[in-house]
Amino acid sequence: MARWVFYSATGTCALATHIALYEAGADVEVVKLDFAANQQQSPEFLRINPKGRVPALVTEQGTLTETPALLAFVAQRFPQAQLAPLDDPFAFARLQELNSYLASTVHVAHAHKRRGARWADDPAAHEAMRLKVPQNMTACAAFLESLIVGPWVMGEQFTVSDGYLYTVGSWLEGDEVEMSRFPRLVAYLQRVGEREAVRRAVAEAAA
Amino acid sequence: MARWVFYSATGTCALATHIALYEAGADVEVVKLDFAANQQQSPEFLRINPKGRVPALVTEQGTLTETPALLAFVAQRFPQAQLAPLDDPFAFARLQELNSYLASTVHVAHAHKRRGARWADDPAAHEAMRLKVPQNMTACAAFLESLIVGPWVMGEQFTVSDGYLYTVGSWLEGDEVEMSRFPRLVAYLQRVGEREAVRRAVAEAAA
Repeated sequence: MARWVFYSATGTCALATHIALYEAGADVEVVKLDFAANQQQSPEFLRINPKGRVPALVTEQGTLTETPALLAFVAQRFPQAQLAPLDDPFAFARLQELNSYLASTVHVAHAHKRRGARWADDPAAHEAMRLKVPQNMTACAAFLESLIVGPWVMGEQFTVSDGYLYTVGSWLEGDEVEMSRFPRLVAYLQRVGEREAVRRAVAEAAA
Repeated sequence: MARWVFYSATGTCALATHIALYEAGADVEVVKLDFAANQQQSPEFLRINPKGRVPALVTEQGTLTETPALLAFVAQRFPQAQLAPLDDPFAFARLQELNSYLASTVHVAHAHKRRGARWADDPAAHEAMRLKVPQNMTACAAFLESLIVGPWVMGEQFTVSDGYLYTVGSWLEGDEVEMSRFPRLVAYLQRVGEREAVRRAVAEAAA
């Protein structure tokens, strides 16, 4: 297998796939883009991912994007790492249900803090969006808190969803969510953060 | 297998899963919620789906939500319908990449027309969001147009992604996208709309 190349950037949801790749033991070269310098919109990167976003994973078969798709792909390509219940469609759907919720509800709610220009041109509207982020992210945190019943979010087995929930969960405090209201989530995030693969991905993502 | 119950509502993304269920030949009871009467927030429905949204599918194993998760689940539970490339992780990831993009980018862009209250309280901000919807949905349509190379969006085989792209694609004209700029997409949407299972789901979703 040719070595994969993974495109990431500091402070983004790419960390979720980064964690999954390290948990899987994938042989991957990590390339960090500098969002402050707008490298994700460079002609070179747009040839790799026309959407101008991270994560993007260049494999021997082509380039893949979108976190939920990448997480399932990593789990399927490294079945021995047991990062998803691959032989149980219902359990797999549960995992994908959470990934989809994180992508299209929680990440979107968070993005209204700094990415309001995606959805409106008026600066006053961006400010109105920013104001509502703590309320929306608190509602998301309450829902996520209700999911944490085992050591990991899917139960006894660590899965790709844990790296994703860890990534998105790490945004809550900065979005002014009062974390003391969600003790199970706090303990869970600490538990995930102590894993060796997670620490390694977090350190590289921050560097 | 106990009969599944599928919760839907007119004009929503639930149509995508509705189409998948009919293409799969699933034995399912369809229950329509009246969003005008806010039935999705009724205590009865919140016990089924605490998120108060459609789609929701009640199976013998429990309830599932989130369109991308449901589409993969239907494809996996009805492998004989060949609604996804289940034996090829890369091809499956491609399908999921599109589903994830439709859920977290295109659907979200569309939702800023009427659901601005999710992300800001100020009515002026809702109006600013509405104003940008045609521009964002046109950019999405241009990207989607670039994907249509075969009869179906994944190529020669009709998949669950076709019902999803058909559903989201049917919103473009109402979002003031000039469809004549995207002839491959227009022909594609017509092609999908002619399928028997699609016509049946569309008629029920509209009723």
